[in-house]
Amino acid sequence: MARVYLDHNATAPLRPEAKAAMMSAMDVVGNPSSVHIEGRAAKSLMEKSRDQIAEALGAGNADIVFTSGATESAALALAGRDLKGSGIEHDAVGAWIDEVLPADPMGQVFVTDPENSTLQLANSETGIIQKLPNGLAVSDVTQAIGRLPFAYSWAGVEMVLASAHKIGGPKGVGVLIIPQGYDLIAHQRGGGQERGRRAGTENLIGIAGFAAALTAAQTDLANGRWDEIAQLRDQLEARIADAAPDTIFIGKGANRLPNTTAFVTPGWKGETQVMAMDLAGFAISAGSACSSGKVKASKVLRAMGFGEDDGACMARVSLGLDTTSDQVDAFAAAWIDRYKKMRARAA
Amino acid sequence: MARVYLDHNATAPLRPEAKAAMMSAMDVVGNPSSVHIEGRAAKSLMEKSRDQIAEALGAGNADIVFTSGATESAALALAGRDLKGSGIEHDAVGAWIDEVLPADPMGQVFVTDPENSTLQLANSETGIIQKLPNGLAVSDVTQAIGRLPFAYSWAGVEMVLASAHKIGGPKGVGVLIIPQGYDLIAHQRGGGQERGRRAGTENLIGIAGFAAALTAAQTDLANGRWDEIAQLRDQLEARIADAAPDTIFIGKGANRLPNTTAFVTPGWKGETQVMAMDLAGFAISAGSACSSGKVKASKVLRAMGFGEDDGACMARVSLGLDTTSDQVDAFAAAWIDRYKKMRARAA
Repeated sequence: MARVYLDHNATAPLRPEAKAAMMSAMDVVGNPSSVHIEGRAAKSLMEKSRDQIAEALGAGNADIVFTSGATESAALALAGRDLKGSGIEHDAVGAWIDEVLPADPMGQVFVTDPENSTLQLANSETGIIQKLPNGLAVSDVTQAIGRLPFAYSWAGVEMVLASAHKIGGPKGVGVLIIPQGYDLIAHQRGGGQERGRRAGTENLIGIAGFAAALTAAQTDLANGRWDEIAQLRDQLEARIADAAPDTIFIGKGANRLPNTTAFVTPGWKGETQVMAMDLAGFAISAGSACSSGKVKASKVLRAMGFGEDDGACMARVSLGLDTTSDQVDAFAAAWIDRYKKMRARAA
Repeated sequence: MARVYLDHNATAPLRPEAKAAMMSAMDVVGNPSSVHIEGRAAKSLMEKSRDQIAEALGAGNADIVFTSGATESAALALAGRDLKGSGIEHDAVGAWIDEVLPADPMGQVFVTDPENSTLQLANSETGIIQKLPNGLAVSDVTQAIGRLPFAYSWAGVEMVLASAHKIGGPKGVGVLIIPQGYDLIAHQRGGGQERGRRAGTENLIGIAGFAAALTAAQTDLANGRWDEIAQLRDQLEARIADAAPDTIFIGKGANRLPNTTAFVTPGWKGETQVMAMDLAGFAISAGSACSSGKVKASKVLRAMGFGEDDGACMARVSLGLDTTSDQVDAFAAAWIDRYKKMRARAA
């Protein structure tokens, strides 16, 4: 069997629509800031992409600031503001906030002061979805867009941030949605790009890919494609639960992303599971990919009140739209085989 | 005649080598921070690209920090340091410095306190090259790399910054070269990418394109390809000087980039020249492209002691390696035709 990629929350393969848009953008010669025909063609592609992204996310196009990814968007939205948040946030958000908001064991965060708080829409490790309180200052919607219905205009959130590569766009491009006229302190200065909110020649090829990927993702979402994936995820959890009754599925019963399962198998380190399954031909994760190869106990689980041992024994499987029932069955069989061997060794 | 693009200092067309590398990188599925096979393949491509760029720029690979472009690199290198610099610097540098260093009419900047100063290697508008003083804190080498021999190891500069798109790489990717271990304050935080100096999932496709473009550019430079382009530039200046003896060529006689000419034609606004030549089929510029479509008098010329009128009447023509003698002749003929009509109207 060919390799099976089940780590879509770390990054998703580039969608064919994104690839086609990027190859086409490669032939656009100009700098979007130049006034000649070549420059205007580049500007036109950028603004068409901006319109597509604004429409897909229910925002005005003047609210869209293109960035190099959700990490830059988080820094722009959060640096110097000392907002309140929870320990379940991604490190790119956690770096800037006061982690005072508790999460319950089902992953729910209760926000008391939304105007001074940040809260993700969906968690990268557990897939658990939050109900965003009205008036929230900032939300990281990176894992949610394209997988859940979302519109900035009805979210009741002042700023949202996301990246392209979780939905099949390229790595290294993202967006901050911010009310037009908000007095943002630009981190990159010089040129007047992005209405002075983010200077620097734009990643035009990446932006074109982002727009194409997001548009395609919204079509798939509208067509109910993720409902099929949620069934595969449930099928996977049922098989694992049947063979390994001591396994705990994090947030099961809570509102979750359709593609994500995170489970704790006591005594079997997540890191070991990742390596065993990698050797067996499957790419999964033991948590967020964004710590550059460092594998450590899930900070998310600890914030939800789980112990250090549970956090260290978590594995995450995140499916994509191209994941098949056969792949899920093959994964379950391989995982159960290694699980039984692990238990036999421990006995 | 097809359109003729003579604005390579604003941005250069994507090199075929970059395009091929980017298309290949599109099929690399993983996140470089993931530990499984797919993640390691992505990491391997990134590190191979880093090695290529380090070698091409004479740096150690641990000195290379990938960014979203020279504007981000400038912010990382310069924010909060209040270094001294000149008004001829690009706005992305100018935004962060104390512009106290004068430039002479030939564009030369004299640095008295290199440890606390920044100085570009080559100017985007005039092409004028500086002799970098030993011990300089920061140099913007964006317009110089791939066109002049340059190695970080012998430059005697602590940090240098550049972008990919001036040498035929993609827009939206750049580099900061900084001594390994320098206590840099990261602007993007969260993940441990780029040794903690710049968090966020890397623009892998862009980085692969940057590496391929830079390697190809260095080969062309070593093969003397720019010498031919300098001859075309001189041929263009000679034809214009012959027909329009009142035109002043900025920095002529100084050490300049082989591809750049900036000239002031009294009474004929740069903006008007750009539009007239655009209609005639040629893309040129009236200064830096990075002010998002705003056309204003050249800040660079004013910093060199020229008057506001001269700055407003500057045009820049920047050739590429694919520029032909026929294209230069066609441009000169079209420019001279419009020049004569302009003079006739003014008479």
